[in-house]
Amino acid sequence: MQMDKLRIGIIGAGGMGTNHAGYIHRGEVDGAELAAVADINPKNLELFKSRFGDDIAVFDSAEGLIESGLVDGVLVATPHYDHPPIGVKAFENGLHVLLEKPVGVYTKQVREVNAAADASGKIFGAMFQQRTSAAHIKMRDLLRSGELGEMKRNCWLITDWYRSQSYYDSGGWRATWGGEGGGVLLNQCPHQLDLWQWFCGMPVRVRAFCSFGKYHDIEVEDDVTAYVEYENGATGLFVTTTGEAPGTNLFEVAGDMGRLELSGGKISFDRNRISERQFNREYQGGFGEPEHWQCDIPAGGGGGGHKEVTRRWVEAIRKGDSSLLVADGRDGIKGLEISNAMLMSEWTDDWVELPVDEKEYLELLRKRIKDSDYRPGQGDDGVMDVDGSF
Amino acid sequence: MQMDKLRIGIIGAGGMGTNHAGYIHRGEVDGAELAAVADINPKNLELFKSRFGDDIAVFDSAEGLIESGLVDGVLVATPHYDHPPIGVKAFENGLHVLLEKPVGVYTKQVREVNAAADASGKIFGAMFQQRTSAAHIKMRDLLRSGELGEMKRNCWLITDWYRSQSYYDSGGWRATWGGEGGGVLLNQCPHQLDLWQWFCGMPVRVRAFCSFGKYHDIEVEDDVTAYVEYENGATGLFVTTTGEAPGTNLFEVAGDMGRLELSGGKISFDRNRISERQFNREYQGGFGEPEHWQCDIPAGGGGGGHKEVTRRWVEAIRKGDSSLLVADGRDGIKGLEISNAMLMSEWTDDWVELPVDEKEYLELLRKRIKDSDYRPGQGDDGVMDVDGSF
Repeated sequence: MQMDKLRIGIIGAGGMGTNHAGYIHRGEVDGAELAAVADINPKNLELFKSRFGDDIAVFDSAEGLIESGLVDGVLVATPHYDHPPIGVKAFENGLHVLLEKPVGVYTKQVREVNAAADASGKIFGAMFQQRTSAAHIKMRDLLRSGELGEMKRNCWLITDWYRSQSYYDSGGWRATWGGEGGGVLLNQCPHQLDLWQWFCGMPVRVRAFCSFGKYHDIEVEDDVTAYVEYENGATGLFVTTTGEAPGTNLFEVAGDMGRLELSGGKISFDRNRISERQFNREYQGGFGEPEHWQCDIPAGGGGGGHKEVTRRWVEAIRKGDSSLLVADGRDGIKGLEISNAMLMSEWTDDWVELPVDEKEYLELLRKRIKDSDYRPGQGDDGVMDVDGSF
Repeated sequence: MQMDKLRIGIIGAGGMGTNHAGYIHRGEVDGAELAAVADINPKNLELFKSRFGDDIAVFDSAEGLIESGLVDGVLVATPHYDHPPIGVKAFENGLHVLLEKPVGVYTKQVREVNAAADASGKIFGAMFQQRTSAAHIKMRDLLRSGELGEMKRNCWLITDWYRSQSYYDSGGWRATWGGEGGGVLLNQCPHQLDLWQWFCGMPVRVRAFCSFGKYHDIEVEDDVTAYVEYENGATGLFVTTTGEAPGTNLFEVAGDMGRLELSGGKISFDRNRISERQFNREYQGGFGEPEHWQCDIPAGGGGGGHKEVTRRWVEAIRKGDSSLLVADGRDGIKGLEISNAMLMSEWTDDWVELPVDEKEYLELLRKRIKDSDYRPGQGDDGVMDVDGSF
């Protein structure tokens, strides 16, 4: 049976919303069509119409679009704070939802949209398109299949998120507690934070060191070093900043069977011939270590990116099968929980156990929103070209 | 004027002492000769005589050798705790001193030997032979000459110190609070800790996470992740363990002029055409970063190692010029101070400001010595072959 085309509404016609609209409008997502758009900024709507034609229904609010009856699902690309409430509203109106990253700013609001998704039975996806990368899929495979053995330590140096002051000055909401609710962890790193837990699982506690406005005239964090511990005693590091140029993107994981490295899209596996734990028990020779082989792991080309996430969301909807999603929207809370824990550790100058105390986090965040230069709803920025952004 | 040959006494005829004796005995240190040896273990002395002949004076205590009048300088390669008191005794008897690393176990005792060196006016060297490596000299040059600009962040992943249980079982004093006073930080890492401060200067505070006996049946730390901050706000990481195989040895420094990496003895410098700070102020384009060039830095071959340190100590003595030393013995306290701070941070589960509170550190250490399986003077291990060790 051939269903009618799934009617998609874009909420948030800024740079990223316009990007999604483009490939849907060009018919690159089978079984779906661009039906409507909503934005609170009339200029954005004008520009959107000029690009995609007058056939598309236009709304000056998310609510208007959601309640219009003109769409079956919404792709939400507004500023971060609005993702969860718009998601909740859409689920309550029987729509499917695909949220841009981060799925929200604090876990309390994300738990609400997760509950609304459960209650609605509709399909809930999150725009974690880096999960479509062949190298990332292979890394997860190597880690989850047991090839590396039990994890001992990991380290992600992801400092190639350079941003200049002019980037931050391009939108009033950017890099403010009121507008974004965070800095490099909330805007640039949601993908790596998601991949990190997708690869290695969730840590049990976090001790992080964040600097606010260290390299830029901004309110929020632009330099982070975080140490974490996992249930099995393994340790992890996550280091990020928007203040280094050129930066590093190196992810390594040490396990019982050797060392895995992801760098420049390439995976290398320095593989022990026998497990280190076994060697440690059996070897009698003083100095010595397990024989190991340097293996280059084939990972294939890049994945389908944004478009693949949207395609598979549409496919999941059409087949009524959430397991077809690149990333279930409910997963979005995991990376966010880690980033909330990092900020909380800095604010309290102490360890943070996971799960984070949601109420305490929100209180700490609200103090900063209160003193923020930006208040939500204070106006919005224009459309920034996100080509080359992620 | 041709001086007589400098008469060197080796104190501690274990693996490392025997190694030093070998090249001196073979005449590879101009202007010096092997004159005497001391060890508390008669077996070590027997073995020593069988290798180097009966001409060498033999003592069953450091004191005996120091007070014999048969040597002009001593090279001390005993277990770590004994380095400072033997050094003090030697200086008080008008001898020159070259101490193996670490120069001591806690800074209070090292301050005493530093003071004794000052009072004696004799030449005081430390066996930091990794400072003779061409790549290390070049790294320091690039960092100290300003080529990298102001440092923002550094990270040393130095986890290739793998040791199996059989290594630890080879000597009763090994990896005990009473016998060594620490684990991977005291035994394996003194070189990197010294180089770290030689490259980047001393941090002002430390927050470290150490695990004790995590991968081995030992009392002391075999897994460490340390975060530090420098006076200018730069951050640093130092990660080490004896529990990973194969390990990593990667040192990177991010600075205003780009990124410097030392790995596998090779230096690469990803150099910004203009300073990032200047770019940040001047650029108006939103997304964008400074143009940068990938530069392979020539570093030449390896350095002279142990032998060069001993040669230059002898040269410094003969010319009465401490500036000829590879490493002044007084510098040894710096890396030790960082490692003491790391352990103290774990023990107190808190920040440690530098300089470390010496008395508090000693108290914390003494508690662990009290409960240690090993007591100093409880007997010693045989001679382990240190070829391939550092």
